[in-house]
Amino acid sequence: MSPVAVNKRLLFNEVPDGYLELGVTLKLDSTSQIDLDAPLEEGAILVKTKALAIDPYLRNRMQGPSAKGYIPNFSYSLGEPISNFGIVVVIRSENPAFQVGDHLYDHFKFQEYSIIKDPTTCRVLKNEEKLPWSAYLGTLGMPGQTAYFGWKLYSYAKSGETVFITTAAGTVGAAVVQLAKAQGLKVIASAGSDEKVDYVKSLGADVAFNYKTKSTREVLDELGHGIDIYWDNVGGEILEAAIDALNIFGRIIMCGAISQYNTKTPYGIKNLFHAVTKRITIHGFVVADAIATHKEDFYAEFPKLVAEGKIQHKEQLHYGLGSAEQALIDTFKGDNIAKPVIVLDESL
Amino acid sequence: MSPVAVNKRLLFNEVPDGYLELGVTLKLDSTSQIDLDAPLEEGAILVKTKALAIDPYLRNRMQGPSAKGYIPNFSYSLGEPISNFGIVVVIRSENPAFQVGDHLYDHFKFQEYSIIKDPTTCRVLKNEEKLPWSAYLGTLGMPGQTAYFGWKLYSYAKSGETVFITTAAGTVGAAVVQLAKAQGLKVIASAGSDEKVDYVKSLGADVAFNYKTKSTREVLDELGHGIDIYWDNVGGEILEAAIDALNIFGRIIMCGAISQYNTKTPYGIKNLFHAVTKRITIHGFVVADAIATHKEDFYAEFPKLVAEGKIQHKEQLHYGLGSAEQALIDTFKGDNIAKPVIVLDESL
Repeated sequence: MSPVAVNKRLLFNEVPDGYLELGVTLKLDSTSQIDLDAPLEEGAILVKTKALAIDPYLRNRMQGPSAKGYIPNFSYSLGEPISNFGIVVVIRSENPAFQVGDHLYDHFKFQEYSIIKDPTTCRVLKNEEKLPWSAYLGTLGMPGQTAYFGWKLYSYAKSGETVFITTAAGTVGAAVVQLAKAQGLKVIASAGSDEKVDYVKSLGADVAFNYKTKSTREVLDELGHGIDIYWDNVGGEILEAAIDALNIFGRIIMCGAISQYNTKTPYGIKNLFHAVTKRITIHGFVVADAIATHKEDFYAEFPKLVAEGKIQHKEQLHYGLGSAEQALIDTFKGDNIAKPVIVLDESL
Repeated sequence: MSPVAVNKRLLFNEVPDGYLELGVTLKLDSTSQIDLDAPLEEGAILVKTKALAIDPYLRNRMQGPSAKGYIPNFSYSLGEPISNFGIVVVIRSENPAFQVGDHLYDHFKFQEYSIIKDPTTCRVLKNEEKLPWSAYLGTLGMPGQTAYFGWKLYSYAKSGETVFITTAAGTVGAAVVQLAKAQGLKVIASAGSDEKVDYVKSLGADVAFNYKTKSTREVLDELGHGIDIYWDNVGGEILEAAIDALNIFGRIIMCGAISQYNTKTPYGIKNLFHAVTKRITIHGFVVADAIATHKEDFYAEFPKLVAEGKIQHKEQLHYGLGSAEQALIDTFKGDNIAKPVIVLDESL
């Protein structure tokens, strides 16, 4: 076997105007090669990519060089591979903290092989519970951490309260539904298809509806409002309806705004001033902050809950880097039926 | 002197459509009489109104019976006197906690005399600092409490940070400017006239501008953003500009939204989803909650600061119930030059 291998990559090719255009926004590239036997610097590791996650927030990273950088270098660079959370396997190591065969979780490029010069941020996944590796990109990865920390830090939830959760069939939403039920809350949940609604009900949601066939505002009106916590993954008109339905001292956990990511005409929230009379607290929230300081709490608690079946999850596997762009488009349009995970090498 | 006196009242006559209409929204009424010698129930007191406050939030209470009641009975009833914070003097008492001549602070009707059957919520103002009584309706009343508690509870201010304060020449804003400067913050302040801007500068604001002649967005852009705390008294387009100018981990204290009170077409906030990426916390805030639990902190601390000149203030006195409606209109339009106080009886 030749030590020089093709290193397939998925490149950011063009800033999308609204939704991604298949084969235009991203381009699969086979022109890069890597010498798998070339010497590694001390401390470096060579890894092969096992799997990569597809998450809604990636749309925000396709803004190109004109993007205002709230997070430095947040947007992908044109001509460079896109990146996201993934699992890689160490195939060579010049770093005593990483052994050949170790499964690592971190942010990785969408390419088959990577040399990681400074792997200190990589986490070796022990997976003592023998869970499917894909779970570590879903409910045990960034989305599960988002649910766990967002709920723990900003819900101020009390048993008997009511929470409304959007995109409740997504990995984040599904975990929040289960955390809320475990704590004795009433859960109202919305999702984007009847199949997803059934899934959310199977997780214990007290009320679940398809927001594409029923108006969220009408459902909340029929329920007589009474919401204490709103978990916002969507923003826009639904956020506005939720503000109207919130109780006094209501909390909004703003975790995402997928309805606003693919539009050039953002929806204007016309009732935000009710936050004053209703004493609403709104927490915008990026999980990276909590991960930086509290991730050991998560790893100590959450894999056990998953292994015991207390947090259910599901992933949809897509095979090959070439499947990633369609999986992204499906995610932005809500056409995915489970957490999409791009598998590059099943054998690892 | 006849014990039966005319009891002039200012009645809520018609729900306003936008701004108040002078002589139509409110009506001065002289048809009510009161027998000043009639027996009082045990525990009751008879008071004469000395002065009443005019505050921007009163516009919210003129919604009529169709108003959605976030706060029960928040809207005034048609045909009944309006009410607000005021100072009254006890002229008869069947309650051992209140002596004839005591000055009381509480919520009172806009009428000359009132019988208070249960005066337990009335606070006897000792005024050991011998401050002008009008101060107790401004910087030592609800507006000053709003500044004190909002800043203390929700600013999470640190020396060296930057705060942007709207309606900074108002009683609330002026107190916040001074609290922020005392804590070592940089203060950017806006107000609605050049005269008000000069006043705000005299209170120590580092940057102050007239938002009617300079675009808030342009000023914040020129300053290069960098705002850590936004004290929002106005809502609407200025809130939107402030969200764009906030730093990561920025805080918004939503205290009012005067730009939205008199309009039927509320402004839609199009960038609220930046609260996610910027990890912004928004606290909607009604001072009554903090007063209910922490008012002694305020009375222990704030009158001293005022007496020592560390919190400056000014009031504009208007004489007679008949002056109240114009004072309200001026307040909603921003034409007042100081805290408006309606004086009913100077001699008390």
